[in-house]
Amino acid sequence: MSETTPSLLVVSAHAGDFVWRAGGAIAAATLRGERATVVCLSYGERGESASQWLAGKPLDEIKQIRRAEATAAAAALGADIEFLDLGDYPLRESPEAVAQLVDVYRRVQPTVVLTHPLLDPYNGDHPAAARMALEARILAQAIGVANADGSMPTAETIIGAPPVFFFEPHQSEQSDFKPNVLLDITAAFPRKRAAMECLPAQTHMWEYYAQLAVRRGVQVRRNAGPNLGLPHDTMGEAYVRYLPQVTDVLA
Amino acid sequence: MSETTPSLLVVSAHAGDFVWRAGGAIAAATLRGERATVVCLSYGERGESASQWLAGKPLDEIKQIRRAEATAAAAALGADIEFLDLGDYPLRESPEAVAQLVDVYRRVQPTVVLTHPLLDPYNGDHPAAARMALEARILAQAIGVANADGSMPTAETIIGAPPVFFFEPHQSEQSDFKPNVLLDITAAFPRKRAAMECLPAQTHMWEYYAQLAVRRGVQVRRNAGPNLGLPHDTMGEAYVRYLPQVTDVLA
Amino acid sequence: MSETTPSLLVVSAHAGDFVWRAGGAIAAATLRGERATVVCLSYGERGESASQWLAGKPLDEIKQIRRAEATAAAAALGADIEFLDLGDYPLRESPEAVAQLVDVYRRVQPTVVLTHPLLDPYNGDHPAAARMALEARILAQAIGVANADGSMPTAETIIGAPPVFFFEPHQSEQSDFKPNVLLDITAAFPRKRAAMECLPAQTHMWEYYAQLAVRRGVQVRRNAGPNLGLPHDTMGEAYVRYLPQVTDVLA
Amino acid sequence: MSETTPSLLVVSAHAGDFVWRAGGAIAAATLRGERATVVCLSYGERGESASQWLAGKPLDEIKQIRRAEATAAAAALGADIEFLDLGDYPLRESPEAVAQLVDVYRRVQPTVVLTHPLLDPYNGDHPAAARMALEARILAQAIGVANADGSMPTAETIIGAPPVFFFEPHQSEQSDFKPNVLLDITAAFPRKRAAMECLPAQTHMWEYYAQLAVRRGVQVRRNAGPNLGLPHDTMGEAYVRYLPQVTDVLA
Amino acid sequence: MSETTPSLLVVSAHAGDFVWRAGGAIAAATLRGERATVVCLSYGERGESASQWLAGKPLDEIKQIRRAEATAAAAALGADIEFLDLGDYPLRESPEAVAQLVDVYRRVQPTVVLTHPLLDPYNGDHPAAARMALEARILAQAIGVANADGSMPTAETIIGAPPVFFFEPHQSEQSDFKPNVLLDITAAFPRKRAAMECLPAQTHMWEYYAQLAVRRGVQVRRNAGPNLGLPHDTMGEAYVRYLPQVTDVLA
Amino acid sequence: MSETTPSLLVVSAHAGDFVWRAGGAIAAATLRGERATVVCLSYGERGESASQWLAGKPLDEIKQIRRAEATAAAAALGADIEFLDLGDYPLRESPEAVAQLVDVYRRVQPTVVLTHPLLDPYNGDHPAAARMALEARILAQAIGVANADGSMPTAETIIGAPPVFFFEPHQSEQSDFKPNVLLDITAAFPRKRAAMECLPAQTHMWEYYAQLAVRRGVQVRRNAGPNLGLPHDTMGEAYVRYLPQVTDVLA
Repeated sequence: MSETTPSLLVVSAHAGDFVWRAGGAIAAATLRGERATVVCLSYGERGESASQWLAGKPLDEIKQIRRAEATAAAAALGADIEFLDLGDYPLRESPEAVAQLVDVYRRVQPTVVLTHPLLDPYNGDHPAAARMALEARILAQAIGVANADGSMPTAETIIGAPPVFFFEPHQSEQSDFKPNVLLDITAAFPRKRAAMECLPAQTHMWEYYAQLAVRRGVQVRRNAGPNLGLPHDTMGEAYVRYLPQVTDVLA
Repeated sequence: MSETTPSLLVVSAHAGDFVWRAGGAIAAATLRGERATVVCLSYGERGESASQWLAGKPLDEIKQIRRAEATAAAAALGADIEFLDLGDYPLRESPEAVAQLVDVYRRVQPTVVLTHPLLDPYNGDHPAAARMALEARILAQAIGVANADGSMPTAETIIGAPPVFFFEPHQSEQSDFKPNVLLDITAAFPRKRAAMECLPAQTHMWEYYAQLAVRRGVQVRRNAGPNLGLPHDTMGEAYVRYLPQVTDVLA
Repeated sequence: MSETTPSLLVVSAHAGDFVWRAGGAIAAATLRGERATVVCLSYGERGESASQWLAGKPLDEIKQIRRAEATAAAAALGADIEFLDLGDYPLRESPEAVAQLVDVYRRVQPTVVLTHPLLDPYNGDHPAAARMALEARILAQAIGVANADGSMPTAETIIGAPPVFFFEPHQSEQSDFKPNVLLDITAAFPRKRAAMECLPAQTHMWEYYAQLAVRRGVQVRRNAGPNLGLPHDTMGEAYVRYLPQVTDVLA
Repeated sequence: MSETTPSLLVVSAHAGDFVWRAGGAIAAATLRGERATVVCLSYGERGESASQWLAGKPLDEIKQIRRAEATAAAAALGADIEFLDLGDYPLRESPEAVAQLVDVYRRVQPTVVLTHPLLDPYNGDHPAAARMALEARILAQAIGVANADGSMPTAETIIGAPPVFFFEPHQSEQSDFKPNVLLDITAAFPRKRAAMECLPAQTHMWEYYAQLAVRRGVQVRRNAGPNLGLPHDTMGEAYVRYLPQVTDVLA
Repeated sequence: MSETTPSLLVVSAHAGDFVWRAGGAIAAATLRGERATVVCLSYGERGESASQWLAGKPLDEIKQIRRAEATAAAAALGADIEFLDLGDYPLRESPEAVAQLVDVYRRVQPTVVLTHPLLDPYNGDHPAAARMALEARILAQAIGVANADGSMPTAETIIGAPPVFFFEPHQSEQSDFKPNVLLDITAAFPRKRAAMECLPAQTHMWEYYAQLAVRRGVQVRRNAGPNLGLPHDTMGEAYVRYLPQVTDVLA
Repeated sequence: MSETTPSLLVVSAHAGDFVWRAGGAIAAATLRGERATVVCLSYGERGESASQWLAGKPLDEIKQIRRAEATAAAAALGADIEFLDLGDYPLRESPEAVAQLVDVYRRVQPTVVLTHPLLDPYNGDHPAAARMALEARILAQAIGVANADGSMPTAETIIGAPPVFFFEPHQSEQSDFKPNVLLDITAAFPRKRAAMECLPAQTHMWEYYAQLAVRRGVQVRRNAGPNLGLPHDTMGEAYVRYLPQVTDVLA
């Protein structure tokens, strides 16, 4: 696979995050025939599975349930998925976890990376995931940084400098999340809806995130202006581009 | 002319600003066959013509010299140019000036707008130009806002919501100018160089801005990563996108 | 009327703003038997009445329509309303307009003030309204500042230092609007809904702002925690408190 | 104890911090008959006991002295106090320390939490304490997060979402401490004064913090306005509310 | 007078501001034998003379009283003083006022400029004064900008680029005032105290600002470190340097 | 050595950083006869030695090459140099590394400290170095904090509170690096040039950083103003002062 083949990598703190927050971008990529890979650092087994703990389920069963749901959701989005099972609440940063992520980067050769924003006062796992995703992205570029098994990479196995986009946190303003990219996901939304419906424990979220897509869609249209003729049912997702855009045309 | 024909509008406080700071973007547009229009709000006759005042030249002559130079530079970039002659040092904001700009917007129908950033502790004319450019852009969109002659616009003569990019101030960090777009101007640079050479009173600036293009070019390559294979002599210009980018693909 | 009788003053740039953005707070106040006064600085006749301009209506008729609608909406909220007719798009700041507002403050003796936030890249009238509301609030406190008719105030007619809250702009993140107060408007929402329905030209906004109330209601519950036992259909509005809260109990 | 019984939890990096910075809020709570609990993460034995090191005292004796002083000060404020003895200069964050704090939260069931702000260029222990206090607060809410002894919590032993207030650092501006709550501690100040006098090694601080209370009191009065009729000897403490206030009345 | 003779210019919105906030810096300069000039843009006759309005004094008398007091205070500091009588509450920015200030700059040839910070939510006159002081400073540098009488300046009468320092507002944190310079005013404090005592209507401020000098003095010592051996009664004033310091030694 | 003898300490993440970014300040100090000490936390063997990895050199040889180059560069600057060999990419913070730095501080007794800024999205080692440098600086001041060998310091071996300056990162704006000190390095530049030429693997950087010195030199002159008569070939380096400047004269 050539390095410039589009390849989307999504680093998600918990098993469900990528669906609600980036499902549209993932589906849009796979609808274009591109490859998308989701890495879940944890299953969200402690912090996002309250109803199952209340139901008295044991830890391993909760992890299996969430793994199965996330796997189904990724399939609905057309994406590959991997689980690092690093534990949540808290998700602890460690050299070993970062090394695993370096290997993922080198294997996936991403041309675009999506992850959580660096600030979230309501959930420390999200920034921890982002910090590890960003650190691994830099390390994976360096020919002097070993693979997780101790072997050295080659000029072919290190990665370039893929752009990074942060997807939307639950309370955007409290997380200083100021979108600078509004993504039109109108065509991709049915796949996102299907993926959301793979997460049956959170039925009330289906409508919540559908409404959010409408609201971001209004902003897509507002910022695009009337000239582009976007339809009234435009659906959107909001992102923060972390590093400067490189381009040869302003638009 | 259809509304979606590319049309670049550059709002420049003084007669020379557009050359140093946005010459690459302008030339890149005209090289693509697009239309570019520069509006100089003043000639920079008081604040940026010290050597001519020291030489004892009268105000009108200074304005003519700077008009001629800017006209030549615009031609070298392949752009149209207009002068509003609003006076500089200070450039004063006024309802009348904004109304003139509204007319420019409606006539030019820009698909992209370039202007100064909103903060510059070394030159108050630059933020004043930006504030007027931004205010006029919003007013020009409204069908209820009259033209400068008092007539009302039509659905065809109002404008859409073109993206706005701030070009680079002299001391970027002091102006809180944090680029989020790095433009590759390698192909356009010879035209920019030619335009700079139309401004003979500022010979020392030619090399200064050529070096800046090199430095921004290094950042273009650094942020693009090695995969894009950009050449070592990549030249760049830095911009701040003011409003969110609207797109249907993350890249 | 004693100075400490609750009295809510809402300074709105256009005739409709107070409904969408602060209708819940207004209705909550009047439901508690408190007085609420809305001051519309303009009718929004140029910038927010596109459909009527497209229909060819003359300026005066548009203003009358919007005045009637806003009057009905204020009545639905239980609030008094006044119109300063300062013009919109742009709403220009002036000493005279500020002097009129000083008189309003001294007459209304507000214990709480609501207005727009100070930043809005999509609409310059909103920050202009906020700047005038804030300036007039300070001037109205000073016994040395004359009334609009030139007479001097007395110790009884000047005002205290009422807290100021900014209500929500259309695109919160772009306006650096980071809510630090989440208001529970569940009981007041039916009045807000009724007030929105007084604005028939913007039917699509009814649902949009109802959904926003749901989303802010989710945040009310999330930030309150489960202990308060707030119901699942909690509705909310978001505000930014401009100056420090003064209190004798942390809660 | 019902979950909604007021219960104040103060997380203090060193043995003395809670007295100088939050003594007024603590005393105000206990004067209202509420429960207050102070947790000192360290004794401040290395970083804040210079005179005792200079006097040649051994580490254990220094810790005992500071423990005794802090215990007396807490008693003067009417508060319970606990010591985790985690060491200072530096106070190191660890999973074990956070787990201990989770247990404290679940035992104390706080309705309000006070701790240090997240930034202090003069003392790294203060932000470390704040980060642990915030992380533990989130973990303690989750039914899937074990207690320190490995047992699982129940729906009754997890906590809600108590508001968090940061108390004042030594150099407020350098720590980006912008108060958004000014607390009137006039009635509580005698208890704070008594608590300060339990710390005899820092006699010069007594007057310093009394003056600070006067200065914050002037700000209480200034922000409250004349209408509230606060007396000239109003004493105050400044706080930063970390998360949005939830309320059903703007005031 | 050579251009490099030290010359301090203080631009003060009201007649008393320079005493409370910059009296130490002024006295320190004159104690070194340097020239200091204070320009009061207004007398503070409306916004800062409440007791005199309550006593029924007419406007002209209030202005005379405040002029006399400020003149005495300037004398106590060893400074010259001028009054532009532009009116306060509000102090309105105007081209004419800026032109007057340009003349002041060219006459005074300042090597250092002190003025208010650019943000103050409690008093709009302060930022207005700062904006005019900054604008005039730039205009006064330009040989193409006319004097107030329409004549043109010469290379000798324009000014250089003197550093600007903002002095302390009443509520520093609310004004985003983060000091980056702490000035030791121990030797100058008696003159500052004498100047404060020239303002008899504000007796309670004497002690307030003396305590502030103590508090800033503690910060002087804390930031200087023990090595400099500053005495315990060090007095200080806090400033924000607006533009980068130029130096040939880091210290 | 008396505590007030000038002593410059430079904490550098990798073996080359101090040359490009602070070589001028170091040479300026040694030209004044002052002592300068560079501490390289790592050799930059993994992250900044790509060409040598591509050439197939083993790790130890790469470290030796970089050690030799940095030693030569320090000699060219007239500075002492030490290497802690903590590893890079990533440079991991640890209590042990901080303890080593505490010892360095106590031995060197710095009167000025230079290090990296706290933010750099392109290289996590730089902020890690800065955090350790800052933490060690605080710990080294405390008489209760042990030396690395477990012995306790004395009043003579602890340090004061030396000012800290951050040197320039590669992409200043992306690192929120807003210089507040511009250092004139014109006289020191030949030594800096000589030091850069000790790093032969990065020939292209020689010209890059020479041009940067020119650009910062232009800013030195611009901010100094014409009065100081700085020559046109002024060379500069940019710094951010981390803590407030303490001074007894504003200039």
